[in-house]
Amino acid sequence: MDDLGLLFLSELIGTAMLVLLGCGVVANVALAKTKGFNGGFLMVTFGWGFAVFAGVIVAYISGAHINPAVTLGLVANGATEFGNAALGVTVPVDFLSVSAYIVAQLIGAIIGAVIVWLAYKQHFDEAPEPAAKLGVFSTGPAIRSYAWNLVTEIIGTFVLVFVVIGFGRNGDGSGLAALGALPVALLVIGIGVSLGGPTGYAINPARDLGPRIAHALLPIKGKGASDWSYSWVPVVGPIIGGLLAGWAAIPLLPILG
Amino acid sequence: MDDLGLLFLSELIGTAMLVLLGCGVVANVALAKTKGFNGGFLMVTFGWGFAVFAGVIVAYISGAHINPAVTLGLVANGATEFGNAALGVTVPVDFLSVSAYIVAQLIGAIIGAVIVWLAYKQHFDEAPEPAAKLGVFSTGPAIRSYAWNLVTEIIGTFVLVFVVIGFGRNGDGSGLAALGALPVALLVIGIGVSLGGPTGYAINPARDLGPRIAHALLPIKGKGASDWSYSWVPVVGPIIGGLLAGWAAIPLLPILG
Amino acid sequence: MDDLGLLFLSELIGTAMLVLLGCGVVANVALAKTKGFNGGFLMVTFGWGFAVFAGVIVAYISGAHINPAVTLGLVANGATEFGNAALGVTVPVDFLSVSAYIVAQLIGAIIGAVIVWLAYKQHFDEAPEPAAKLGVFSTGPAIRSYAWNLVTEIIGTFVLVFVVIGFGRNGDGSGLAALGALPVALLVIGIGVSLGGPTGYAINPARDLGPRIAHALLPIKGKGASDWSYSWVPVVGPIIGGLLAGWAAIPLLPILG
Amino acid sequence: MDDLGLLFLSELIGTAMLVLLGCGVVANVALAKTKGFNGGFLMVTFGWGFAVFAGVIVAYISGAHINPAVTLGLVANGATEFGNAALGVTVPVDFLSVSAYIVAQLIGAIIGAVIVWLAYKQHFDEAPEPAAKLGVFSTGPAIRSYAWNLVTEIIGTFVLVFVVIGFGRNGDGSGLAALGALPVALLVIGIGVSLGGPTGYAINPARDLGPRIAHALLPIKGKGASDWSYSWVPVVGPIIGGLLAGWAAIPLLPILG
Repeated sequence: MDDLGLLFLSELIGTAMLVLLGCGVVANVALAKTKGFNGGFLMVTFGWGFAVFAGVIVAYISGAHINPAVTLGLVANGATEFGNAALGVTVPVDFLSVSAYIVAQLIGAIIGAVIVWLAYKQHFDEAPEPAAKLGVFSTGPAIRSYAWNLVTEIIGTFVLVFVVIGFGRNGDGSGLAALGALPVALLVIGIGVSLGGPTGYAINPARDLGPRIAHALLPIKGKGASDWSYSWVPVVGPIIGGLLAGWAAIPLLPILG
Repeated sequence: MDDLGLLFLSELIGTAMLVLLGCGVVANVALAKTKGFNGGFLMVTFGWGFAVFAGVIVAYISGAHINPAVTLGLVANGATEFGNAALGVTVPVDFLSVSAYIVAQLIGAIIGAVIVWLAYKQHFDEAPEPAAKLGVFSTGPAIRSYAWNLVTEIIGTFVLVFVVIGFGRNGDGSGLAALGALPVALLVIGIGVSLGGPTGYAINPARDLGPRIAHALLPIKGKGASDWSYSWVPVVGPIIGGLLAGWAAIPLLPILG
Repeated sequence: MDDLGLLFLSELIGTAMLVLLGCGVVANVALAKTKGFNGGFLMVTFGWGFAVFAGVIVAYISGAHINPAVTLGLVANGATEFGNAALGVTVPVDFLSVSAYIVAQLIGAIIGAVIVWLAYKQHFDEAPEPAAKLGVFSTGPAIRSYAWNLVTEIIGTFVLVFVVIGFGRNGDGSGLAALGALPVALLVIGIGVSLGGPTGYAINPARDLGPRIAHALLPIKGKGASDWSYSWVPVVGPIIGGLLAGWAAIPLLPILG
Repeated sequence: MDDLGLLFLSELIGTAMLVLLGCGVVANVALAKTKGFNGGFLMVTFGWGFAVFAGVIVAYISGAHINPAVTLGLVANGATEFGNAALGVTVPVDFLSVSAYIVAQLIGAIIGAVIVWLAYKQHFDEAPEPAAKLGVFSTGPAIRSYAWNLVTEIIGTFVLVFVVIGFGRNGDGSGLAALGALPVALLVIGIGVSLGGPTGYAINPARDLGPRIAHALLPIKGKGASDWSYSWVPVVGPIIGGLLAGWAAIPLLPILG
């Protein structure tokens, strides 16, 4: 397999793992009769945090973006290559590689969502509420307002990409690298508890659109509509937030020393 | 003591510690009059996560599988020796060593479950509900369906073994090794909150079968049946999931660089 | 930009991030209709803890005080320069640099609070309770008593600054440095759950005064008064606590070896 | 100050910090009108875990036992010197040094408990329930039975000391040392959620006896009796558990390689 193929596969696997565990925790909390039913928002945020942790671990070859907003934010920040230089697997940043990353993330997210449905199949069958079923797959706003929902998603994703770029600035000097995949997991827990209130913090277009496609296609018993009218918000908002963070980090998080 | 004896003892101690703290948190949440009664599912997952942490710490000699699904998954992945090479204690992977690991894990799990009973003796005596008592020892499905319960256990254990193999791929380059026993603890918390909803995430045949044997043998006041009709699911499911993960990791988590 | 300008910007960004995520979690828990409404005090403390984590990460240039009580505590402890020696950006500790740090922290806190208002705009509009709205921005006492509230804030901030100085004493020998921004995040979670009960643990004058100024200035729908009569307590208390900790650490946390 | 004086002071400060944050979280959860009232058992365990974290950090000179059961367990395990060899401050293990450690821990615990009372003064004054007030200071059994309560404390402390000794066996090879004070904090959270149900997990004679003495001496408004009839259980149980763990670790956690 050529290098881009390896990176494609890596992003696909990582995003599938992210969505499997991430949408899984929502299923556990939202679907009736599960062991974790009504487990609370903190549990949801821990689930997504450790989902990021696991996803980043298995996407070690590609640099573990597992999120188009991260990919595009790094482009905006001036990245010239993607991949894992230590492993000798890199590709130049160009339209082909960026597209490959994003397509892989979207396909991975769809696959992860399908596996969640299988893991919770009986609970999908028994849960009477179509809204809860969609909520396992995709985010929805607490108060619907496309403009303000967009603002919230932009802010949340800005924090994600800005701090992720900040991790790289703390490098060996502070020893942060020794934590591996953990810092971004903790960051995502933090964004969830702090900025997830209004929209459920998609902060990742693939995480939201992929499962929404799965929701539309899967023969889920008693499902309702896939709320396509809202679907662009958790795609456009994170893309804007990621790009803004990448640009803002150039002057605000300078590389010194 | 010969090397295999050291490894046997190490797996036994580690699995006993795992089950003592793991089943202990269920006792705390499920048995009446405890300080942690009705403490919630998140607390249960933290208990099992830190149980893994402690178990891995004390099983430093054997490589801390403390789970037959991990042992078999590593075999499927092509492991040629078990143990701790840095300490100079290893054995070749063969029928004898694999059997020794699994038998040690099972015995350790039984011992751990007996100690939980001693630690919570009065609460077992006072709790009126036989189902709660069995729940301290072994998992049971939220909605009984052998086929779908098996699917859930396969998926959960696949994630466990697949990501554990992924830890090894992140090695020194990412500094993940500096976290020692912590990554697998966080992973198990993540699997619990995200995939534990339908079956209570056994994801470890020894963790489920060992305590079930203890439940059957111990003179627990007011106990009910040990639900042997379900007992094969949390044994067979994790074994299948572990083997699949070991095989899948060969192409999907390649060793590069 | 000169060095002091870099450090000013770094403190400003770090404190803005701290307050954005910190006040954000309170908004999520306290304002009606959010996903995390009534999420509990533990969730609040995790939100503030990971807010510190993110704030410290992005303030890597300035040494990440992001708190006047830390800045003054380090002065009391005898610090002679601020900044990041490894990156070659330092300034001597004098009236100018201390003032710059504190002003940057206060401006950053105001900015962070404004962004929280934007992220939760609709929920501020819908929440009927003025007290909940102020609570998102600034702390208030559970039982009002300026003297005892001051005591609590002094104790909480003493612990913060004293243990932060202790981190430096554990240095490379114990490997704590490898955890980067994580230890102070965990410490702040600990102070929150343990000492946050009476006053809501401001333990940071900028974190409390900056958002209070934002609350007074922003056109928040249905807001009430900004409770200026209490506002000096979470400023004076943390300053006293920080100074006491800096002085106490000289004999109690000696540099040995 | 001579070396033993430095170690005495270090243990005293560390145990005071442990008890301040540890008893503090109980005050927050148990006393009326606090921000964290009824915050749940998980929050209590996180409070004690991060209390251990902070206590270990500031007791860097003495090796941070901050618990007589750890001190005695290390003696039983064959320790020949206490202190911090890297800092050049050690004393031989003998009656004098062991006594100094334990006396320092007890005095530190009393001081920490007094400061908790000051931090929560108004809430002690307003809370009507004497039992809740004593519960802030010292543990009490969920179901009183000296024999079984003793068993639970022995098991919990055995786990603590056994795994702490295990940390040392994972040393540099696994990189666990890079986590500094964090592993023991996580372990204590784990013991709390898993084995804290029956007795509230004293697992530390100083942590229980010191605050009980403070409770007896302090002019706490509306306090009840200090329950001296139970007080020996959380002293004797942890001592037995620590000694057993120290002895058991000699054959079960061998030093290899």
